[in-house]
Amino acid sequence: MDLGMIGLGRMGANMAQRLIRGGHRVVGYDPSEAARKGLEDKAGESAESLAALVAKLDAPRAIWTMVPAGTITDDTITALLALLAPGDCIIDGGNSYYKDSLRHAGLCAAKKVDFVDSGTSGGIWGLDEGYSLMVGGDAAVVERLRPIFEALAPSASEGWGRVGPAGAGHFTKMIHNGIEYGMMQAYAEGFAILGHKKEFALDLHQIAQIWQRGSVVRSWLLDLTTDALGKNPTLAGIAPYVVDSGEGRWTVAEAIDLDVPAPIITAALIERLRSRDSDSFADKLLAAMRNEFGGHAIRKE
Amino acid sequence: MDLGMIGLGRMGANMAQRLIRGGHRVVGYDPSEAARKGLEDKAGESAESLAALVAKLDAPRAIWTMVPAGTITDDTITALLALLAPGDCIIDGGNSYYKDSLRHAGLCAAKKVDFVDSGTSGGIWGLDEGYSLMVGGDAAVVERLRPIFEALAPSASEGWGRVGPAGAGHFTKMIHNGIEYGMMQAYAEGFAILGHKKEFALDLHQIAQIWQRGSVVRSWLLDLTTDALGKNPTLAGIAPYVVDSGEGRWTVAEAIDLDVPAPIITAALIERLRSRDSDSFADKLLAAMRNEFGGHAIRKE
Repeated sequence: MDLGMIGLGRMGANMAQRLIRGGHRVVGYDPSEAARKGLEDKAGESAESLAALVAKLDAPRAIWTMVPAGTITDDTITALLALLAPGDCIIDGGNSYYKDSLRHAGLCAAKKVDFVDSGTSGGIWGLDEGYSLMVGGDAAVVERLRPIFEALAPSASEGWGRVGPAGAGHFTKMIHNGIEYGMMQAYAEGFAILGHKKEFALDLHQIAQIWQRGSVVRSWLLDLTTDALGKNPTLAGIAPYVVDSGEGRWTVAEAIDLDVPAPIITAALIERLRSRDSDSFADKLLAAMRNEFGGHAIRKE
Repeated sequence: MDLGMIGLGRMGANMAQRLIRGGHRVVGYDPSEAARKGLEDKAGESAESLAALVAKLDAPRAIWTMVPAGTITDDTITALLALLAPGDCIIDGGNSYYKDSLRHAGLCAAKKVDFVDSGTSGGIWGLDEGYSLMVGGDAAVVERLRPIFEALAPSASEGWGRVGPAGAGHFTKMIHNGIEYGMMQAYAEGFAILGHKKEFALDLHQIAQIWQRGSVVRSWLLDLTTDALGKNPTLAGIAPYVVDSGEGRWTVAEAIDLDVPAPIITAALIERLRSRDSDSFADKLLAAMRNEFGGHAIRKE
């Protein structure tokens, strides 16, 4: 079928390419001319504006937005709604906060435009391995889009599904990423302990390789970790500074809202915050308190 | 080659069977007659005592102990040392604490018996998929035992390796299990949040299945989780009571000894302790304090 793809960054460009491989027609828009050119070089069509993109698709249109969550997604959906007709459909495949998606669904409904949120996992490997897609929206609308999901997923029947109404897709993806924070932190702590046990002189890359086959902790994240340790066993040149892009903190807020204890997902988020707090006021205050009550030495900066 | 296998429980029996499939001769001992009979039914030989087992093997002997960590492993190694000759070898494949293994290596060395510790992961699936083996010991001794490790591992060249001197195998397995605690807890918390989001009526088994293909959180533990949710979506009949068998607490103690922060592995252990603390004195005291300072109501038992 025909699909408009808005946002031709790493994710959007690869997804467009996978759709084209699957026999679909993709018309892409991105503010970057190089990104548009990239799509055309790979059998796609491009448009120089949202209006031009809408004009190149016949109603009822299906338009996938793959742009950063937050303001850019908000603005894109608002701009699209001024251009689309009743019966058209917007699919937000980005990492939007599910409460934003519920709001977007409402904005769309007011214009009789369908809205679907598709949590999308798979990173840069998705082009070849397929994307895991957690889809929220009306069942009939999702059914109409089935050929798109079947082409993006690892196989037509696996790795994707409608999980519930609009919002449920991004909710599920948010929790997916919360789990990912915890898993990543578990590996990170384990390898850190192994590396600090100097008397055994352990080879972390070798151990990761051993664990890849037959062990209880084997996983795709372990495969990536093994690659990273193989290329750079001491992680030279990598600052101990870990960014977060929202899903972890949203997961923690949701857990608290629902009265569900989620201590390790929470702690994994906190560790990322701590990785960026190289001048910790709390640590200074702890040192100062120890000095006050026990005369313990303070390390000077 | 010939191998003595002590302990024919679920792990030991399956490992013996995998070795026999690999063309090795296995003589097994277990106090249970049924377990010994089970090995004989599957082309193994059995012995009714440790002495009988030692008598059925030619020197230099290789004897694998697959018995519970702690006293039973201690007693087994002590008993074996009274029977073995210089040049024989004991391989402890159980989940011994690595400091016990260092001690066992010393006891063995005093009798000129070789000692190898093999951290073994794979559970009941290992019989068919192979075991992940983290091996500690002298390089020459491990090399002599290579055919055994090659037969037990998923393939001759994958899923096993000598990671360092005696003790290093069980150390590595201990950290492996610490990581496992964190990963399990990450999934557990994520699915708990999904299940509590009643308005989306999410199907946890479906979501687990979606994640199995293409997602960043795909793993063998997720595969097992998917199976469990498929068989019993509400986890009916399963008490929220989680046992630990030592490796988690050893990992946490080691992290503290090495000054390595391991907050989420620690929190995962604490959650298991909390799962067993259904009459929490701390929770009662918190409720009492709130009542003291704010007159907040106490829920009566």
